[in-house]
Amino acid sequence: MLIKRDSGESVSGSRQTGVESHMSHVLALDVGGTFMKGAVIGSDHVPVVRLRFPTPRAHGPEATTAAIASALVDLHQAARERGLTVKAAGVAVPGIVDETRRRVLFSANIGWRDTDLAADLTHRLAAGATDTGKLPVILGHDVASAGIAEARIGAAQGYDNALIVPIGTGIAAALISEGRPIRAGGYAGQLGHIVIEPNGEPCGCGNRGCLATIAAASAIARRYAARTGKPESEVNGAHEVLQRLHTGDTTAHHVWHEAIEALATALAQATNLLAPEVIVIGGGLAQAGEPLLAPLRESLAERLTFQRLPKVVPAQLGDEAGCLGIGLSALEHIS
Amino acid sequence: MLIKRDSGESVSGSRQTGVESHMSHVLALDVGGTFMKGAVIGSDHVPVVRLRFPTPRAHGPEATTAAIASALVDLHQAARERGLTVKAAGVAVPGIVDETRRRVLFSANIGWRDTDLAADLTHRLAAGATDTGKLPVILGHDVASAGIAEARIGAAQGYDNALIVPIGTGIAAALISEGRPIRAGGYAGQLGHIVIEPNGEPCGCGNRGCLATIAAASAIARRYAARTGKPESEVNGAHEVLQRLHTGDTTAHHVWHEAIEALATALAQATNLLAPEVIVIGGGLAQAGEPLLAPLRESLAERLTFQRLPKVVPAQLGDEAGCLGIGLSALEHIS
Repeated sequence: MLIKRDSGESVSGSRQTGVESHMSHVLALDVGGTFMKGAVIGSDHVPVVRLRFPTPRAHGPEATTAAIASALVDLHQAARERGLTVKAAGVAVPGIVDETRRRVLFSANIGWRDTDLAADLTHRLAAGATDTGKLPVILGHDVASAGIAEARIGAAQGYDNALIVPIGTGIAAALISEGRPIRAGGYAGQLGHIVIEPNGEPCGCGNRGCLATIAAASAIARRYAARTGKPESEVNGAHEVLQRLHTGDTTAHHVWHEAIEALATALAQATNLLAPEVIVIGGGLAQAGEPLLAPLRESLAERLTFQRLPKVVPAQLGDEAGCLGIGLSALEHIS
Repeated sequence: MLIKRDSGESVSGSRQTGVESHMSHVLALDVGGTFMKGAVIGSDHVPVVRLRFPTPRAHGPEATTAAIASALVDLHQAARERGLTVKAAGVAVPGIVDETRRRVLFSANIGWRDTDLAADLTHRLAAGATDTGKLPVILGHDVASAGIAEARIGAAQGYDNALIVPIGTGIAAALISEGRPIRAGGYAGQLGHIVIEPNGEPCGCGNRGCLATIAAASAIARRYAARTGKPESEVNGAHEVLQRLHTGDTTAHHVWHEAIEALATALAQATNLLAPEVIVIGGGLAQAGEPLLAPLRESLAERLTFQRLPKVVPAQLGDEAGCLGIGLSALEHIS
């Protein structure tokens, strides 16, 4: 089908049909701890093919690298079956990723340590039987890629300065300043490890009282369990705490309120430093919607005086953001 | 005299003689609350002429704008007397400055409110008798300009990611990420207004317990006076507190220690978000040297675990940094 763009040019694009053969396409793969989300994405930013693969991280980092190469070959094959011309492959991974030097410096999740992942994938693809080996491989960070997607085609579109904050088992931030991601060699955006309570709960990072120990979705459930004396396995995540909040459960109220206050404190600090015009809340916790966002807006506003008050909005692209974002990076690379 | 550069090319430059007539030069003016520091700067980054002018801010913002135009004419005249070709003028001012839109949005110090200062100066210069009116006027922020100077030719030279933190009557930060200043329309870098003690002393910004209320040079003196019961006028600034610290004064020790802990807390937060490789401490308080920097390094290191630990170093360019930096920006503009 034909999509008429604002610029007036006509480009073809479709989520289902295969008539976009004169467009450039890229492969996009977002590597998570359990699944890898793959897509073939056209220069109109529309995913044409979506494939999902298991991440064999229990078998070690080598196995995961091999699985990524294999997933790219499968995606390429799916694109060829539709007559699409693929020009690059983008791979988003968790950890500390230096896109410029094309290295994964550290990934606790997968087990990579200072790995030249892009070169390794290029090598593996070149050794295969298909012409996938000729594709340039673009490496990205999962959260940064999600941030790029929200900034270019999602909730932060039209803003030059934005903070994209996925809240799930951890809390991270993608920083966009004057339209460009701030990466600092892969070390930027550790919003979840800003210390809120210097003598608070221990965090996996070795510190105490980090934002993530108070306001990550998993922390909200854990803190509720601890205060009510329930086994953690009996609390159905932050979702249950939110439900109990609505039934007048005062412990749920306190835990939820503390999470919001901690988030507001960290976001106020980020606002002082980076002055985002918009803060996009994503990840599992964002599904709470206004019961999260409304008090967060209020609490953030209370903490700011002369500063430019950022809008606080929910993410638009859900868990597809990372895959779309690395696709956009790959498209930028070939254009 | 001839300076041999690393690149092997020979360029002429001098702080005193007038043999640099074949180089491009710019005018640079750093507008402070009391004085304006002016210079004529060559493409070798060396100031050839230095002039200082009073800032007539008691007479209102219009008078200061007129004084800036007049200072630029004087600097241009001094350059012409040396046979120098001036191609642009850079003006650095305090407040919230949007360099892209060339506007001063707010300056508490001078009194400007959403002023198109660059256009106003261009207009005033064009109305004058000299050919100064043909110069493009580049507008900059004083702290951001100082940051650019430290990053390009000072203590942060060679680092892609840096934080430059002048500490004086207030605390600000210039942020450099991947070699570029982060400005966010002039709102970025409010390090001094990160809240350290939510119920602390009132800050001029309307909030309480901001970093500046604990660790600015003026705050250190004020807090020492308050705790010893001395009139503030009898405490000779943070300098006296530092001297008394060395003589075993426990109140001085506490006040100094609290300032360093507060600074370390704010810098740890900035490190989580921006991951600078180097933090450059400038302003009056930096003259304290190692009694400030050594415990600050230690305290910052204690607050970080997996993060990349930034170096903490003193500024190199002193109070000339703002003038040099806006000169560098003007030189970039013409090149």
